[in-house]
This record gives sequence, C-alpha cells and structure tokens, in this order.
Amino acid sequence: MTGAECLLETLAANGVEVCFMNPGTSEMRFVAALDRVPAVRGVLCLFEGVATGAADGYARMTGRPAATLLHLGPGLANGLANLHNARKARSPVVNIVGEHSTQHQRYDAPLSADIAGLARPVSGWVRAVNDAAEIGAAAAEAVAAANEPPGQVATLIVAADVSWSPAVPAAGRVAEARRARPDDAAICRAVESLRRPGTAILLGGRCGQARALEAAGRLHAATGVAVLVERATPRLARGRGLFQPPVVPYFPEPALEALAGARTLLLVEAQPPISFFGYPNTPSRLLPDRCEVVTLAERSQDGTAALEALCGMTGAPPARWTAEAPAPRIPEGPLTAEAIGAILAARLPEHAIVSDEMVSASGAVLPYLAYAAEHERLPVTGGSIGQGLPVALGAALACRERKVVALEADGSAMYTLQALWTMAREGADVVSVIFSNRRYQILEIEMMRTGSLGMGPAAQSALDIARPDLDFVRLSEGMGVPAERAATAAEFDRQLTAALEARGPRLIEAVLG
Amino acid sequence: MTGAECLLETLAANGVEVCFMNPGTSEMRFVAALDRVPAVRGVLCLFEGVATGAADGYARMTGRPAATLLHLGPGLANGLANLHNARKARSPVVNIVGEHSTQHQRYDAPLSADIAGLARPVSGWVRAVNDAAEIGAAAAEAVAAANEPPGQVATLIVAADVSWSPAVPAAGRVAEARRARPDDAAICRAVESLRRPGTAILLGGRCGQARALEAAGRLHAATGVAVLVERATPRLARGRGLFQPPVVPYFPEPALEALAGARTLLLVEAQPPISFFGYPNTPSRLLPDRCEVVTLAERSQDGTAALEALCGMTGAPPARWTAEAPAPRIPEGPLTAEAIGAILAARLPEHAIVSDEMVSASGAVLPYLAYAAEHERLPVTGGSIGQGLPVALGAALACRERKVVALEADGSAMYTLQALWTMAREGADVVSVIFSNRRYQILEIEMMRTGSLGMGPAAQSALDIARPDLDFVRLSEGMGVPAERAATAAEFDRQLTAALEARGPRLIEAVLG
Repeated sequence: MTGAECLLETLAANGVEVCFMNPGTSEMRFVAALDRVPAVRGVLCLFEGVATGAADGYARMTGRPAATLLHLGPGLANGLANLHNARKARSPVVNIVGEHSTQHQRYDAPLSADIAGLARPVSGWVRAVNDAAEIGAAAAEAVAAANEPPGQVATLIVAADVSWSPAVPAAGRVAEARRARPDDAAICRAVESLRRPGTAILLGGRCGQARALEAAGRLHAATGVAVLVERATPRLARGRGLFQPPVVPYFPEPALEALAGARTLLLVEAQPPISFFGYPNTPSRLLPDRCEVVTLAERSQDGTAALEALCGMTGAPPARWTAEAPAPRIPEGPLTAEAIGAILAARLPEHAIVSDEMVSASGAVLPYLAYAAEHERLPVTGGSIGQGLPVALGAALACRERKVVALEADGSAMYTLQALWTMAREGADVVSVIFSNRRYQILEIEMMRTGSLGMGPAAQSALDIARPDLDFVRLSEGMGVPAERAATAAEFDRQLTAALEARGPRLIEAVLG
Repeated sequence: MTGAECLLETLAANGVEVCFMNPGTSEMRFVAALDRVPAVRGVLCLFEGVATGAADGYARMTGRPAATLLHLGPGLANGLANLHNARKARSPVVNIVGEHSTQHQRYDAPLSADIAGLARPVSGWVRAVNDAAEIGAAAAEAVAAANEPPGQVATLIVAADVSWSPAVPAAGRVAEARRARPDDAAICRAVESLRRPGTAILLGGRCGQARALEAAGRLHAATGVAVLVERATPRLARGRGLFQPPVVPYFPEPALEALAGARTLLLVEAQPPISFFGYPNTPSRLLPDRCEVVTLAERSQDGTAALEALCGMTGAPPARWTAEAPAPRIPEGPLTAEAIGAILAARLPEHAIVSDEMVSASGAVLPYLAYAAEHERLPVTGGSIGQGLPVALGAALACRERKVVALEADGSAMYTLQALWTMAREGADVVSVIFSNRRYQILEIEMMRTGSLGMGPAAQSALDIARPDLDFVRLSEGMGVPAERAATAAEFDRQLTAALEARGPRLIEAVLG
C-alpha cells in the first residue's frame, strides 16, 4: 500500500466521499490511487477556487467534510479566497496540499513556497507530513480536526514521496467530536433574559436551519422576544410556512436601527454583531452601549437543542407561520431585480437550494423569496467574492435530488466562472442566474458612502465592467452549459421555468433594464 | 490632500505609472484619487491574478514596478499565485492591499484576515500603514523596496481610514538602488575559470537579454566555454542572428546530461541548477559532485557588465551568429505543435514579445523559434499556472509598439482567462494562441514518470479536460476578444498572419490533431 492509498483509505473510513481537485505533478500518486479507493470520488475543477468553494457548499449541505486536492503553494493560494469563506462558515474541509518530495524541500526550486504559512490564515489545523509511516494517522487527525465543532479547515500538507512510499494500513475511524448542549446554567440565564423586556435572540451557525428556526419562532410567539439572524449564517431556511426572522442589515445605519431596542442580546451560535466594513462616523460594533450580551450557545455548541430546551422550559407551544401578504404576481415589462424576485417566488421548487452571491441585487430580490416555497439559502459568509457558483456546484453534488439555483452578480461571477465546466461535466442540477447590470454596483454605493459623490472618469471606469460587455451566454456555452439571455420579465419567466423543469446545468443571463 | 492622494502622488513621483487593480470597498478612496493623480493610470482587471500577472509582465519589460491594488485578504489571496511567479522572476511589484479601517481591525468582521501573513510568502518587504501621517514615506519606501536589486514584491497594506484621512504631502523621490558590478576579485576568478577545461557559464536573471547574450556569445566563441541559461530566466532574447545558448532542460535526466561535463560552473545572476520537481531515483541537484561553483555575479549584481568585463579581459572579439539551418518551411495537413512552431518561425514579427505558457507543447515549438526574427520570450518562472495571458497583457501595456504573442496551453489558460477582457478594454496588442489538446498533457507525462503506467478511469478523468470540450472561441468572444479556430496548418497560418497584421487582441484556438 502506498502512502497515497493509505491517505485515501483513511479519508474513506472517516466518511469523506468526495475530493474536489486540481492536481499537479506532486499529487499524481494520489490521483493514481483514486482507482484503488473508489469510495472517494475525485471531481476535477479547472481552478482551485472552484474546488475549495465546492467543498464549502458540500460541507454546508451535508455537515461533513469533502476533501480538496491542491498543487503546492500556488495551487493552495488560488484556493484561499473560498477557504476564507469556508472558515467564516465554519465548514469542515479536509484541505490536502501536495508538497515537494522531502529531499527536494531543502532547495529553492521554482515551486518552492511556504505552504504552511499560506495555509495558516484560513486553517484551524495545519500539519505537514514528510514520513509515509505517519500519513494514516495524520489523515484521520485531519478529518477529526475538520469535524471539530463548529467545523474548520484542516490543511494536510503531503510530501510527494509520502504518496509514493510504502505506508502502513490506514488508521481506521476516529471518534467524532459531537456538539454539546449548553449547560443548564446557560439555559437558565437565557430563560431569565426572556422574561425581561428588550431581549433579542441572535441566531447564527447551524441555527439558520429549519429545526432551530421553528424553536426560535415558538419562543417569539410565546414570549414576544425579537429574533434576528446573523448575515453570515451559512445555511438559512426561508420561504412561506417558515418562521422568517430578519437578517441583520448589511450597512451599519439600518443595522444599528434594527438593534437599537435591544437591552439583552441572546447569542445562539452567533457573535456580537459587527458591521461588514468600518466607515467614518459610524461605529463598527452594532449593539447599543447599554445592551447586555448573554451567550446561550457558543458556536461550537448545539444551539438548536438549547433553543428547544428553552421552548420546553418556557412552555412555548408549537406555532404556525404563513407569509404575511399574498404572493406577488408575475410582473411584465423590462427585466428588473424585483421582477426576478417575484418570478423566483412563484417558480422556485420546494426544497431548492439557493446559492446567493447577488451582491447589490439582494436588497431587491430577497424580500420576494419570503413568499417562495420552502428553500435554503447559502450566503457569502466571509465576503470573498467568487463563492456563488462553486458553492452551488458543491451543494448540487451533496444533494443530487434537490434543485440548486445560483443567484450571481455579473462582476462576482467572473472570479470563478470555471465552476460552470465542472457543473457540465458532473451533470450538476444547477440553474445559474447572472444579474447583468454591467457595473460593480455595490462599489458605486460604497463610493457614495465615502463622500466621493463626484466621481471622475478614471474612478467611474474602475467600477464599470462594460466596455466590452461580458457575454455570459457565450461564456457559459464555452464551458458546456446551455444558456439563454433574458431582457424582459416574460423572457426570464419562460427561460427560468424551462431551466427548472430540465435536469442538469443551465444558465440565464438576466440583462437588467 | 487625503492619504489616498498622497499615496498615489508618491507612487507617481517614484516612477510608478500604472496600477493593475481589482478594488473593493476599502479601496474606494484610492480609486477616487485616480482622477486627481492622472500620472498613475488605473487598469481594471476582473480577477486579482490577472492584475498581479500583468504587473509581473510589465516589470519584466520595463525593469520598473507597476502597482497593484487588491481588496483585503481574499483579494490578495487571489493574486498570490502570480505574485509567486513575480517573486521567482525577481520582478519589482508595488503590491497595495487595502485593509479594514484601524478601528475595525480589532473585530472579527467577515473580511477580517491575516493580510501580512498571506503576503509574506511572496513578498520581500511587507508594511502595514495605519496612520495617514506615514503613508507618503511608506509608499516611497515600498517603491524603493520593490526596486532593490534584483527586484522583489513589496506589499503595502493600507487601512481604509489612512486613505480617507488628511495626509502630509508626498515624500518625493527616493534614491534608487543600482545594481553593482561584481568586484575585480570575482571577475579575476571567473577569468581563471575560463582558462580551465570543462567550464560552463549559467546565465539567469537579466542575463537572458540581448546585451548579456552577446557578451556570453563572444566568450563562447573566443574560449569555447559552454553557456547555458536558467529555465526561469524571466526575459530571454531569442531568434536568428542572436547567440542562443540552450536552456537547462525541464526533466532531471536530460538536465543531468547537459551538465555532466561541467567541472566549473560560473554563475551569472543564477543559482546552482535544481530540478523542477523531485522524483524517486534522480537527484534534485543537477550538478556533478565534482563540479566547482564560482559566482561571477549575484542575482542582485550587474551580470551583464561583468560578462562585458570578461570579454575585455579575455580579449574576446565581437562574434556573429546565424541560425544553423535554413528556416523550416510552412507545413501542410492537420495542425500540430510542430506546425505551429514552424509557422511562428516564419511569421513572428521582429521584436515580438512571446509570453510562454505552452507547458507540454514547448518541447515541440521552441526549437522552431530559434529560426524566428529576433524576439523576447517570457517563460513561467515560478511554476504557478495561469501566468501566460496576464503577463502578455502587462507586457503589451508596457511596450505599446511591440506585438505580443501569448502561447498558452488550454488547461493553463483556464486559470486566468479573465485577462482577455482587460486586453479587449485596453486594446492590448496581443495574439493569444491556445494549444487545445484537451488534456493536462504534462500531467500524463508526469504520471508515467511516477511509474503509474496503467491509469484507471478515475485517474484518467482527472487529467482529461474534455467532457465537455472547452470552446475557446466562445469564451474569447464572451470577453470581447475576436477569435477563430484552426484545425489545419493552413488555417492556422492564415489566421495567425491576419491576427499579426491587425492591431488589438485576437485569439486563435489551435485544435491539435
């Protein structure tokens, strides 16, 4: 058994079933071993950011890590931005990076680089293996580290000669750390907080999922407690019939307003809210000064069980939720972000997964999705652009029976567009909608916020991604994904309906009027 | 004057004329300031790896740094792979990375990351500025650090509030470090080596350029000394009429053979040769054990002046060089890499710049280019894939009057294909030739070398980038670059000739038979 086979067998024994990869020379033995360990399926990506984003999407939907396979320092570097998002999502990822053979590491070869140094800022665990005798144990440790609640990126750096040398059989399955329910003292403190006026619950982590939302909704109905959700909640159940607490707003002014009434904030797998960016004249910390922060569940704990315990202790009965207004009707005329929202609300199939990298369009679209059938939304957690399509890919491979819709801004689509090719190759059931406004519109808004109202031509040019216009239909077809362009609401509705009925990847370029 | 204006003015005063950028919120003041400091031109890129690769190409052709502008940790992360190549090329780059405002840095915001930690593995100099009073001096120091011979990546991390706060006027121009000629002792040692049998000269760094090659050629003609060039030489003059010493081969076996006769190796801005990768049963160090290494010029010194001094001391007369065989004729039939080589040899215009990321096709193409008109070739210096198109872009903007030809493998083209869009926007005079063999062919070769001759279907799939085929004509047109596909030598010849006669970007997908 080679070290590469031992590595793969250990991954398989510990529940890792897929490896998103962009391998190079130092990883050839790992690739060769894929045929001998069929329990781990290799999924080829044409760019490393696609592999790491897909691993994030896969982990969000399964709660289990995928592996990645990246080539030396530069391959890791290309995957870092989406590992940053995975880190902020607390997604478990077993991030495998090939390294030069042990004897080659002492030289300044072209690809020599400080791999561990590059990995550390995004990883909760880093280990370099230079001895084939250690690879089985190290691989098991990597999976355990990735799974350590709340979940993290575990980077395993594997020297080429470890892969090609003989290794001892795999270390077998290691015990998995489980999320603990918060202790009774924390739950009692929370019960006490619920009795006080001005208490708000902030949900994060896994508490965006349906079971936690149901419990939070019962508490809200029974006690009147306000409930909010962290922006970076990695997986958020939404749609009519669900309790849909508001998400903390993006800009500090409305976020401050949303939190202004809080005298006690009860954190459930969340952290005290911080604005996305710092601005002149607004604070970074969004809580009122006098607000007391009480932790019901740490990020690494089981907030859902804690919320359910609170329901039991407060006697909160089951509650029912319906959308507060009738579903919006399908609009006519030119295509707008609002029209896309209304059409999605009508057409989104039940249990769809929505990968959300709409950026500036989200303000217009998201209110409509409250009227859609029950679905789950995967937002950008760490602000790294280029997440939407890779996360959609990973989610689609994790949940083959669910339809995935990627809502993607045109500017952000261009960072990791190569995801379309892997969608085509894998037959991933993803409908990608590109919001084509041909601007870095969020930056225009941010530019106005800096007080730079009168932008000159050089600044305008930096925010304008027309000249030339991107043609997403050709780009998509160039990677094997059938595509259409919609410029009116009726066209978009027809194309979206057809794409949702088909299986396999489709793309719609939504040209916003 | 804001900190952003001070930064830009200091860059301009120190000779930085262009900034390749992909800005975000924290960089908006910098963008706004571009209109007030027109001496620095902003060039928008849709992905950070394009910006950093373009800065590398620009620096290789001008010897001066461009600036980059990247957005926080993830934006830097996306630019790291091509900064790795720039580092190995010893290209001066002023790498500017925006950071959260000073007061925001203490919080765990979504985009919080260890920017300096990410920057260090690729940077020779890193400084974070959190006080607007320091930005002028820090910017001048960054340019000086980038220019410090032999050249390096200098990363300047700028907090958002530094950009928006008032700053003192720019620090003006700092003295530029100049490359020193090696001292007389080094030159005398080298003269002595030339008298001994079995001496070889290894050229690297700036000594791939025409003046150094001419001097090395004179020494070769006068003394019979063998001359070789490092693979990673960032800029290599080639073509009929030039002295064209062989490049150290990629694989260790032929490299060992090429160096087997060396008893003394004279390093001129080069390092003792190391194989690209480590393999079982071959050494990493490529020199024979008994070979003595003598340094004529360190990487930071002026090797060209040293070679010319050697010519003077040995009395080597001027020499003339002509291609040793008649130029190959234009072939017929299906398109092969060899046919592309022959056609390029016939059609390449004088003083063309060839960005070379052909990967597995280079063995077939490069021998033909010896017969081409005098040109300069920019190879991949650090092994980071995704360099070819961005470096071509940067070279084209550095040398508006010269034709740039990017020779690009299909697999590697997909890492930073977004470079095409900036080529279209800037009217960059680049003809991109995509070698479309629909495989990671270099990896097939490397796989065979590992002894894994019988690849199973899973391994084969990982090296096969067909299913679906990439359509580079659509991909190119989707980003605004006119494109054609060639499947025969005649088609390629016609398309290449037309593309070379036109101005502005063109792409040819060369489907290899």
